[in-house]
Amino acid sequence: MRMYDVINKKKNNQALSREEIEFAVMGYVRGEIPDYQMSALLMAIYFNGMNDEETLNLTMIMAHSGDMVDLSGIDGVKVDKHSTGGVGDKTSLVLAPLVACFGVPMAKMSGRGLGHTGGTIDKLESFQGFSTSISSDTFIKNVNEKKIAIAGQTGNLAPADKKIYALRDVTATVDCIPLIASSIMSKKLAAGADVIVLDVKVGSGAFMKNIDDARHLARTMVDIGHKAGRKTIAVISDMDEPLGFAVGNSLEVIEAIETLKGRGPEDLRELCFELGAQILMGAGVYDNREQAYNALANKIMDGSALRKFREWIEAQGGSGVEIDDYDRFPKAGIVCEYKSNASGYLAHIDAEKVGDVSLVLGGGRTTKESKIDLSVGVILNKKVGDKVNTNDTLAFVYANSESSLKEAVEILDTVYTFSDEPLRKQPLIKDIISDMCK
Amino acid sequence: MRMYDVINKKKNNQALSREEIEFAVMGYVRGEIPDYQMSALLMAIYFNGMNDEETLNLTMIMAHSGDMVDLSGIDGVKVDKHSTGGVGDKTSLVLAPLVACFGVPMAKMSGRGLGHTGGTIDKLESFQGFSTSISSDTFIKNVNEKKIAIAGQTGNLAPADKKIYALRDVTATVDCIPLIASSIMSKKLAAGADVIVLDVKVGSGAFMKNIDDARHLARTMVDIGHKAGRKTIAVISDMDEPLGFAVGNSLEVIEAIETLKGRGPEDLRELCFELGAQILMGAGVYDNREQAYNALANKIMDGSALRKFREWIEAQGGSGVEIDDYDRFPKAGIVCEYKSNASGYLAHIDAEKVGDVSLVLGGGRTTKESKIDLSVGVILNKKVGDKVNTNDTLAFVYANSESSLKEAVEILDTVYTFSDEPLRKQPLIKDIISDMCK
Repeated sequence: MRMYDVINKKKNNQALSREEIEFAVMGYVRGEIPDYQMSALLMAIYFNGMNDEETLNLTMIMAHSGDMVDLSGIDGVKVDKHSTGGVGDKTSLVLAPLVACFGVPMAKMSGRGLGHTGGTIDKLESFQGFSTSISSDTFIKNVNEKKIAIAGQTGNLAPADKKIYALRDVTATVDCIPLIASSIMSKKLAAGADVIVLDVKVGSGAFMKNIDDARHLARTMVDIGHKAGRKTIAVISDMDEPLGFAVGNSLEVIEAIETLKGRGPEDLRELCFELGAQILMGAGVYDNREQAYNALANKIMDGSALRKFREWIEAQGGSGVEIDDYDRFPKAGIVCEYKSNASGYLAHIDAEKVGDVSLVLGGGRTTKESKIDLSVGVILNKKVGDKVNTNDTLAFVYANSESSLKEAVEILDTVYTFSDEPLRKQPLIKDIISDMCK
Repeated sequence: MRMYDVINKKKNNQALSREEIEFAVMGYVRGEIPDYQMSALLMAIYFNGMNDEETLNLTMIMAHSGDMVDLSGIDGVKVDKHSTGGVGDKTSLVLAPLVACFGVPMAKMSGRGLGHTGGTIDKLESFQGFSTSISSDTFIKNVNEKKIAIAGQTGNLAPADKKIYALRDVTATVDCIPLIASSIMSKKLAAGADVIVLDVKVGSGAFMKNIDDARHLARTMVDIGHKAGRKTIAVISDMDEPLGFAVGNSLEVIEAIETLKGRGPEDLRELCFELGAQILMGAGVYDNREQAYNALANKIMDGSALRKFREWIEAQGGSGVEIDDYDRFPKAGIVCEYKSNASGYLAHIDAEKVGDVSLVLGGGRTTKESKIDLSVGVILNKKVGDKVNTNDTLAFVYANSESSLKEAVEILDTVYTFSDEPLRKQPLIKDIISDMCK
């Protein structure tokens, strides 16, 4: 077999066999196939796509390219949740303790990655002493006893995906549904959970800009999960404006705690309940969405979700004092009100640009080596649909330098769109796609 | 500027600016842009194409990436001829001395390249003592005095094309008209001739398999030449069966000499006259195709074309004894008749496969390091339209080993197609495209 022929076949819009995909992927991982041939193949895939069988084969080959995590030491139905990424997405911080209250084990492995803010692991490091570098034994023990633990991705999970993703990232071949689906699902399958709940974001702040693409991606991933023998559910949720009000690391942690205290933003709360309900049904705790919803709301109301969160922080080395005293979190030196110079109904908040604000303030990583500033970010004061008068505060900017603040304000000037007429707010949950309703 | 954005723009089907193309091409030549980004861009160009302006810009940037040859030391209108490549194509060997008879300087620079047989330079090395490693001064002197000289490509002609072509060759991005046109024309423009005559082959043995693609390629190249200020004419000629009877290095030289002696195959003769007429008109010697044709035929009849050929061989170190005694050429050890096991009218001779026969016999290069066997090849005994009876000799195979002969015969078994009905032979010259008739 020659890589040239594999590229040429895909270029000519013919489906690749399992053997051909394996030859290309594993040859690339072993360094036998050069970058320039793999990038040509990826661009041909971008243009000609992959059918369901090719996408499944690609996923399975990448999943098995490294370790397949064995979670059999954990009792019960193991659940994993993955978000395709959005701005202000602190869902996991609320969802994990919430679901753990029901005895559903949340064994979360998380990468740091690049983005507008850090990942869940970075955010949790806002707690003094909290560590995600725990041993495999401690991880399993914590999950069995507390039903919740998070660890940095250890071992060699889907190395083929890692190497191919790095190449896609520099060759403009990221935005391709079969490649996105296989990348996400290869890691999820290797991570070993029985139930996979996917939060597929759609809108200006998401990778998928329209509902058709989001549905296509969701269906592709659910289909892969199903065929690989895992219960898989995708929730398609709005990311046209940021989720909640806070964008930034410790700022998002505070918002998550507020949500666990029953005072969180409505959209974040709704998304956590929807994902939570899907997880509880997936794990067989409830078979009815309304029951699951009510039970989740109760765990907030009666304080058990917050207790579980504290237990989690303590179990991984934190004292949790920050939960009761937000001033103990890393704090930005400058807090600045960003005011409106227009009036009307807020029609759109460009979520991606709000993410860029966090990035220029230092809240995210542009390279793997970047150090994150946990204290900076934005807190929105108005959301889509709100009535705004001139000089009303649209947002609070948390910065640590005048120069980054200046840059942030310049971006904020392009974020907001107003309308003279009141608007009907779009629903947050756009669709739910699961293998069970096929 | 970032290469990522250039790739992404072409991927999104937007035209690239001159600056963007220059950034990509020259950055790649300087080693600042890695292979894997260039191959992704090439694949995006394969799918989304390039408009006329982009193709012209790419050509000019590649042409100017190295030396631009200065032919001002040569008197008169300098002419260059290029063929897109076919099987049995010995046209240059006949055409160069024929045109030189009219005082039109044929300053030919030629590469060795890869292919079913060697290039023109390799073929001429069938003459004992003939050398293409002549100094630039000798080259200019010979062209001025004899009106004919050939040299191996020296200096640094279009290095950008060289580097990009090598990458296209291993990433399945060769078959793309804007990339083919800019590759050919960048070298032709750098080589410095005033008039460029292109022989664009079409058919089973050519790169362009159908007339529409051939016309598109021809028009693109003529357009580039015109805009770069060179008189450019493209002749589209048939390559559905091999040109003439001989395929192989010294075998083709013999057929070329026979043609100069007035005994060559009809199709080769016709093509040389058509290309010759276009050159003579392009150089301003005749303004009428019929006059040019007749004058060319006369140069064969009165022996001046053969004399010019001999003069050429002698001027570059050969004795030319082979012209009068073909036995002095390199000779193959085995000559084998390949007989027909069918009867009927010969409907098709797969030219590409006949080329493969030459290749397996050792007549061509598969890698730059391959050594060519000048003696081996095939002489066809029947051409399309001929009546064939069972056991008639279809071809003579010239080999130097039993094993290569066996391989050659296996390929020959798949070369021929017969018909019960007589066929009307396709015209050899399919179209002529010149900037003058636009």
